[in-house]
Amino acid sequence: MVAITKKLEQVIQANDPESLVAQFGADEPLCTDAGVEIAPWQIAYQTYGTLNEDRSNAILVCHALTGDQHVANLNPVTGKPGWWEVMIGPGRPIDTDRFFVICSNIIGGCMGSTGPASINPETDKPWGVDFPLVTIRDIVRAQKMLIDRLGIDSLFCVIGGSMGGMQVLQWAVSYPDKVFSAIPIATTARHSAQNIAFDEVGRQAIMADPDWREGRYLEEGVRPAKGLAVARMAAHITYLSETALHNKFGRRLQNRTDKTFSFEADFQIESYLRYQGQSFVERFDPNSYLYVTRAMDYFDLASEHDGILAKAFLGSRTRFCVISFTSDWLFPTRDSRAVVHALNAAGASVAFMEIESDKGHDAFLLDEPEMFKAVTGFVEASAKARGIA
Amino acid sequence: MVAITKKLEQVIQANDPESLVAQFGADEPLCTDAGVEIAPWQIAYQTYGTLNEDRSNAILVCHALTGDQHVANLNPVTGKPGWWEVMIGPGRPIDTDRFFVICSNIIGGCMGSTGPASINPETDKPWGVDFPLVTIRDIVRAQKMLIDRLGIDSLFCVIGGSMGGMQVLQWAVSYPDKVFSAIPIATTARHSAQNIAFDEVGRQAIMADPDWREGRYLEEGVRPAKGLAVARMAAHITYLSETALHNKFGRRLQNRTDKTFSFEADFQIESYLRYQGQSFVERFDPNSYLYVTRAMDYFDLASEHDGILAKAFLGSRTRFCVISFTSDWLFPTRDSRAVVHALNAAGASVAFMEIESDKGHDAFLLDEPEMFKAVTGFVEASAKARGIA
Repeated sequence: MVAITKKLEQVIQANDPESLVAQFGADEPLCTDAGVEIAPWQIAYQTYGTLNEDRSNAILVCHALTGDQHVANLNPVTGKPGWWEVMIGPGRPIDTDRFFVICSNIIGGCMGSTGPASINPETDKPWGVDFPLVTIRDIVRAQKMLIDRLGIDSLFCVIGGSMGGMQVLQWAVSYPDKVFSAIPIATTARHSAQNIAFDEVGRQAIMADPDWREGRYLEEGVRPAKGLAVARMAAHITYLSETALHNKFGRRLQNRTDKTFSFEADFQIESYLRYQGQSFVERFDPNSYLYVTRAMDYFDLASEHDGILAKAFLGSRTRFCVISFTSDWLFPTRDSRAVVHALNAAGASVAFMEIESDKGHDAFLLDEPEMFKAVTGFVEASAKARGIA
Repeated sequence: MVAITKKLEQVIQANDPESLVAQFGADEPLCTDAGVEIAPWQIAYQTYGTLNEDRSNAILVCHALTGDQHVANLNPVTGKPGWWEVMIGPGRPIDTDRFFVICSNIIGGCMGSTGPASINPETDKPWGVDFPLVTIRDIVRAQKMLIDRLGIDSLFCVIGGSMGGMQVLQWAVSYPDKVFSAIPIATTARHSAQNIAFDEVGRQAIMADPDWREGRYLEEGVRPAKGLAVARMAAHITYLSETALHNKFGRRLQNRTDKTFSFEADFQIESYLRYQGQSFVERFDPNSYLYVTRAMDYFDLASEHDGILAKAFLGSRTRFCVISFTSDWLFPTRDSRAVVHALNAAGASVAFMEIESDKGHDAFLLDEPEMFKAVTGFVEASAKARGIA
């Protein structure tokens, strides 16, 4: 059983001195799709670069399921580099020498923004599963309130991959006039049945752990670490491609000359997965995992537009750059094509690129030169169009 | 928590009057690849049809991971029809009016053949994880001893899908002169890294359940039912195709007009998966699940032939009919093609058919007319070649 680290505890309780925090009081509730108002609440974030005088060079980066606000700085919990340093930083495709980059922890998350591990002001105990369910639209609504707080009227660009891409699309639909350009990567406008299925397996693994305690584990001083590790292992397989797994591990044995005829991790892929499960447990809150996967499952942009995705984008003046990867089977290219078709039907400006890669869904986080070229070119053209020097 | 049913308990302890049982004493040990001899031991089986005078019309059906010997009769545990009644029975592609069909529960299983839930004669307690690990070759070795016991010198045909197909291939390699024809369906000659990964998630889910008790749950009167249900749910996703899930469930809600904003099974796919997990728990032993998935992971037919699959089949006079399905991503067509290429290289007789289906891996168990046609035609031609009336 992996104990929660002091650092994660600090971060969950938002006592992390390394993040900026925007606080919203009782007079500024977050009104959620579930019909519940959350107040007070807060959002933890990081910024990079400088906001120009026109306040026209702000780029919002949206993180994926298990990401956080530490997109381009050392992660205070894991001690590892930011999760998208290949994409964001000085001289990178999203150039922090030129743009003002904001990345915030999503609502429902566990890195300082209000979520199920936060203290419920009414009870003085952690919310647990009493925390209201939040949707991708709620997550974006909270980000909008942060952007307003920062005095930014309109974003030059919103970018993100996977669940981050869902937020990008939601931004373009919820606040079309506030988004000059949008880069949804390896994402979808609606979560598929298969993806809901994988999410449900993860949730069931967590809720099957007796240390989940009906969601009240924080109060009771325990933690469903084993269930969370299993959830992560199952999900992790979906982030890679069959080819990537074959090339990286194949049937190679783990530091052994032959099979042990036991349930030890004989194969390298087994020990890799176990490591992924264990290390995740040290940096993530199990209830947050339930909430965030649920937000993804509920995501279906067309549903509020008579089921017709194009209607969601009607009249949009945002410039879109949609990117997918050939070996991504979690958010396959056909999902991105559906977005592109809808944007075309709505008469929106859209560039689309399917990138040849054998890295699976994870490709968006990795060193993919074609992706960097596409983003660099698109950002350059958009900056010119907006008159950013 | 689902209690073990009386019926399953009866079956595990091989007191099930509805199965035939072949018992092997101390003088007939099962010598396993792990170097351990299991004795005494037994194998539970069913037969259908009549053995002809020449003893030349016997067909062995090999079952998959969670299958059993009840291939064409009412299952005494579930009360459901046999698992392959579409394929096997009077007038079916494997016609029990014409052939003598045998189906046995695999060693390591939990339907009456010796496995981890059986009583260890040395301790008078259930084996649990002290049961020796068995391989696909061991499973086939046990089947061979059953066939010998039944006085059958040579099988007219060995047929099976998924892990059953692995056994078919192993039969053809271990006992080439005893197999006149072989029909491996939706299978592989070596388990892939991705498949090992999914199996490992299932095992970790079971072993993470505190009621697993390091494998000694039967002694302690508990059962890791929740862990087993999670394992089944994860595996079940891999048996279907994305298209099948989309067509069958899509994003349809479960008896509700709108989302509940909770962790209830809002979507039909969620409630379907939960049902799959729950019903599986009522009919399967968790330790058996560990053992059988491990046997699949270890399966690599080429490994004992310098890694060259063709060598395994060299000199084979068996007639092969290899079948795969277009939407099967667990054992994709390329795995079947690798078998076919090896058989061709070895100069063996082989027919190959990839069947267009959107049902995923499960297609081999379902109503697939093209599969029935292929099997019927192949069996007919093989029967003629062997001179079976």
